[in-house]
Amino acid sequence: MFRKQVFNIIALSWILLGLSMLFSAAWSFYYGEADLIPILKSSGLTVGVGLLTFSLTYSKKFKDLTPRDGFAIVTLGWIAMAAFSAFPMYFATDISYTNAYFEAMSGLTTTGASILGGSSTIAIESLPHGILFWRSFTHFIGGMGIIVFSLAILPMLGMGGVQLFRAEVAGPIADKLTPRVKQTAKLLWLIYVGFVATESIILRIVGMSWFDAICHSFGTMATGGFSTRNESIGGFNSGIIEMVLLLFMFLAATNFSLHYASFNKRRFEYFKDREFKVYLILIAIFTILFSVDTSDIYHWSLESIRHAIFTSVSLLTTTGFGTVDFETWPPLSKMLVFFLFFIGGCAGSTTGGMKIIRSILITKYLVSEVRKLLHPKGVYPIKIGKKVIPDEVVRNTLGFYLFYIFIFVITSVVYSITGLDIETSLTAAASAIGNIGPGLGSIGPSNNWSHLTDFAKWVSSFTMLMGRLEIFTVVVLFSRSFWRK
Amino acid sequence: MFRKQVFNIIALSWILLGLSMLFSAAWSFYYGEADLIPILKSSGLTVGVGLLTFSLTYSKKFKDLTPRDGFAIVTLGWIAMAAFSAFPMYFATDISYTNAYFEAMSGLTTTGASILGGSSTIAIESLPHGILFWRSFTHFIGGMGIIVFSLAILPMLGMGGVQLFRAEVAGPIADKLTPRVKQTAKLLWLIYVGFVATESIILRIVGMSWFDAICHSFGTMATGGFSTRNESIGGFNSGIIEMVLLLFMFLAATNFSLHYASFNKRRFEYFKDREFKVYLILIAIFTILFSVDTSDIYHWSLESIRHAIFTSVSLLTTTGFGTVDFETWPPLSKMLVFFLFFIGGCAGSTTGGMKIIRSILITKYLVSEVRKLLHPKGVYPIKIGKKVIPDEVVRNTLGFYLFYIFIFVITSVVYSITGLDIETSLTAAASAIGNIGPGLGSIGPSNNWSHLTDFAKWVSSFTMLMGRLEIFTVVVLFSRSFWRK
Repeated sequence: MFRKQVFNIIALSWILLGLSMLFSAAWSFYYGEADLIPILKSSGLTVGVGLLTFSLTYSKKFKDLTPRDGFAIVTLGWIAMAAFSAFPMYFATDISYTNAYFEAMSGLTTTGASILGGSSTIAIESLPHGILFWRSFTHFIGGMGIIVFSLAILPMLGMGGVQLFRAEVAGPIADKLTPRVKQTAKLLWLIYVGFVATESIILRIVGMSWFDAICHSFGTMATGGFSTRNESIGGFNSGIIEMVLLLFMFLAATNFSLHYASFNKRRFEYFKDREFKVYLILIAIFTILFSVDTSDIYHWSLESIRHAIFTSVSLLTTTGFGTVDFETWPPLSKMLVFFLFFIGGCAGSTTGGMKIIRSILITKYLVSEVRKLLHPKGVYPIKIGKKVIPDEVVRNTLGFYLFYIFIFVITSVVYSITGLDIETSLTAAASAIGNIGPGLGSIGPSNNWSHLTDFAKWVSSFTMLMGRLEIFTVVVLFSRSFWRK
Repeated sequence: MFRKQVFNIIALSWILLGLSMLFSAAWSFYYGEADLIPILKSSGLTVGVGLLTFSLTYSKKFKDLTPRDGFAIVTLGWIAMAAFSAFPMYFATDISYTNAYFEAMSGLTTTGASILGGSSTIAIESLPHGILFWRSFTHFIGGMGIIVFSLAILPMLGMGGVQLFRAEVAGPIADKLTPRVKQTAKLLWLIYVGFVATESIILRIVGMSWFDAICHSFGTMATGGFSTRNESIGGFNSGIIEMVLLLFMFLAATNFSLHYASFNKRRFEYFKDREFKVYLILIAIFTILFSVDTSDIYHWSLESIRHAIFTSVSLLTTTGFGTVDFETWPPLSKMLVFFLFFIGGCAGSTTGGMKIIRSILITKYLVSEVRKLLHPKGVYPIKIGKKVIPDEVVRNTLGFYLFYIFIFVITSVVYSITGLDIETSLTAAASAIGNIGPGLGSIGPSNNWSHLTDFAKWVSSFTMLMGRLEIFTVVVLFSRSFWRK
């Protein structure tokens, strides 16, 4: 079915995953809590299975990887990593394996949808520190993976169409990276880790404990959204903390190649990028609309702007941190929240959703189609800035968009089969594929996902994965030609 | 701005429209009701303005029409026809002009969304016969227009991509039709009128009055959905009437070129068509899903199948006749109802929605994109049957799909601004652009559209028009290049 090499690389990721659980174990040790043994057990099990699989599949004469191998490694690898990442929570608490897997996949895909929090029976604060740290750490791992997945080899392939995600691009295949790309990847990781460290220090200074600061930095930079509080960011009730999170969510959903270029050239390179400008404009538009629409609720105080900008940035970046229950907002705001689930931040970041650059491209495509109707013989190349976008990239982007909508529709229908009402089903599907976290209805900010049926949770896990891996990486595995010799 | 010729053709359509109001006047006369004078007034006004405009814009040296002229004639013509069609209801009743215009546009676009019916303050049965006849007659006119619009020149241009709807295709420009196409158009009209006549006679035989029979035949063959009863078809409570309507709704949303070919060759040509087969399969799938999902409500009786098949066909054909309030159905059924709003029947019929052939094309496109990911150098032409679909048609279809979704999103947001809840806003937008009629929430089958704000009603009218004219015909009028010399 697959060559040994595929499993060999996946096994390597397990070993690293298992070792990284030791960070959580350190927190358990520090707090002297009972989750130390379960975490060490999970770590040992993961490393053990990893080593065993690695040795069984190792060979000296590995061939070059094919696209097919690459797709399999990324998709199967992600599914298997979630399976192991679920162990600490499963061993240390009463939480079922389905719930633990959902939480792990939600973490690794940087979604932040949780079976905890809100009006849940299990308060987040009641969980031991080691488990909470591991929960947030899965965001960190996932965010790191996505940066490499979407950016390390991007310069080699031109701008961000779907073909970027062909197998050669797949994350962990370091051997295939050319020295230059390897160096780029290293620098991107440094920027990512640097942001996390900086944010942690600032959050500590403005009042969070070290533990909360680090966990929320993971949640921010991965645009994940797991919090250590039941009420998410609202639980801290601190304007200054919100402002710090706002800034770093914003940076996290900015194309990392812009950070890279700015660091590298010691110059502010951001405004040269069309997508970045649209990103700013979108934040401004949604902030204004939310502010005006909710001003009655907040009696025309500054609070409406505060919640408006935080919600805009939190949802546009697909982080999903909450300071307010937008479920109680007026119809227009709720509708905007729903459509915000789809947009996403800039490509080449840890954001989910459709990504702004794709929407720019689609808009230009539609304009060119209208022009062609009037002047059938005219030639209207699609440009972004001064660059003509190749036809293949346009086609891929269109395909991505339609696949995205198609999967959204199917997932909505499946949720409704499990008995969720229309509003919840639609927003849950949009939230899962967009890697957001909260939704509306019974999965709104003051609720959580625990009441979904087990079946719905497995479907959610799979949908989050498809969203995270830009759909095609997963979908090819279901195509006949993938399995044909 | 526009050449005189454009207005000359539009004025001609007014004259015909005004004359056709005399049919309604005849019913008023027959029933001796008070709406006779208002209808005659409307007729006179419409014919008068038409004649005046016609004579003012007439010229002997008219040039060939450009695509630009064509788009203007169709879009402006439809808007103006609704303006005159609103007169009888406006003059004869207390209904406001906004409501009357909404009703007229809903009729002409064969949508069937109504400010009457359901739990409305104005019962449909309380209106005079002449007005009700005119209301249903707008369906007949609209359906006729669409058949010509989408089919008379279709054979000249190949299959149903968006380029079919370039200006040359536009409805009333009979002068540009070649003799062969003129003959085709004539035969299509004969089939359409023949179906209406046959259905009227059968409905009369199975128990409707002549008046109800004719009005419902207009509503059926245009896939419109206006009824003469407050409870729509449910008001007749007759299984046999439902079966007759079912059959003719089914025929109305079948490609009329299949009817044409079958009549012409005296042979059953339907199963040669891919779209027709998918149409049948979709009806079967939705019927089964509805039957199973609602069986608890109907205690596992045959009634669940009866309502399931009627609702499937009524919504897939975009007619919108109702026998049951699907607002009370379980979540899965409501979700399926919502997505049914988008699909539509076969191209080249009076159906609304996206049309099945487009969805087939999109599906094939997505499959080909997945294949390309695995074999980047492979060539995968998109075929329907044995015919390779030109790239241009594929691009247009993709554009249509995305525009459709874009307009759906914008319209939903606009509805929510006017205070409608999310479920109502989303389904109203889908229902308007898909030319369906009912929605969910506060515009469900047991309600109507009268409680919308005036602003929302004008937006609805415009959205119905865009849906009816396949979007591009209207959208080009908003493009800069349309207005550039």
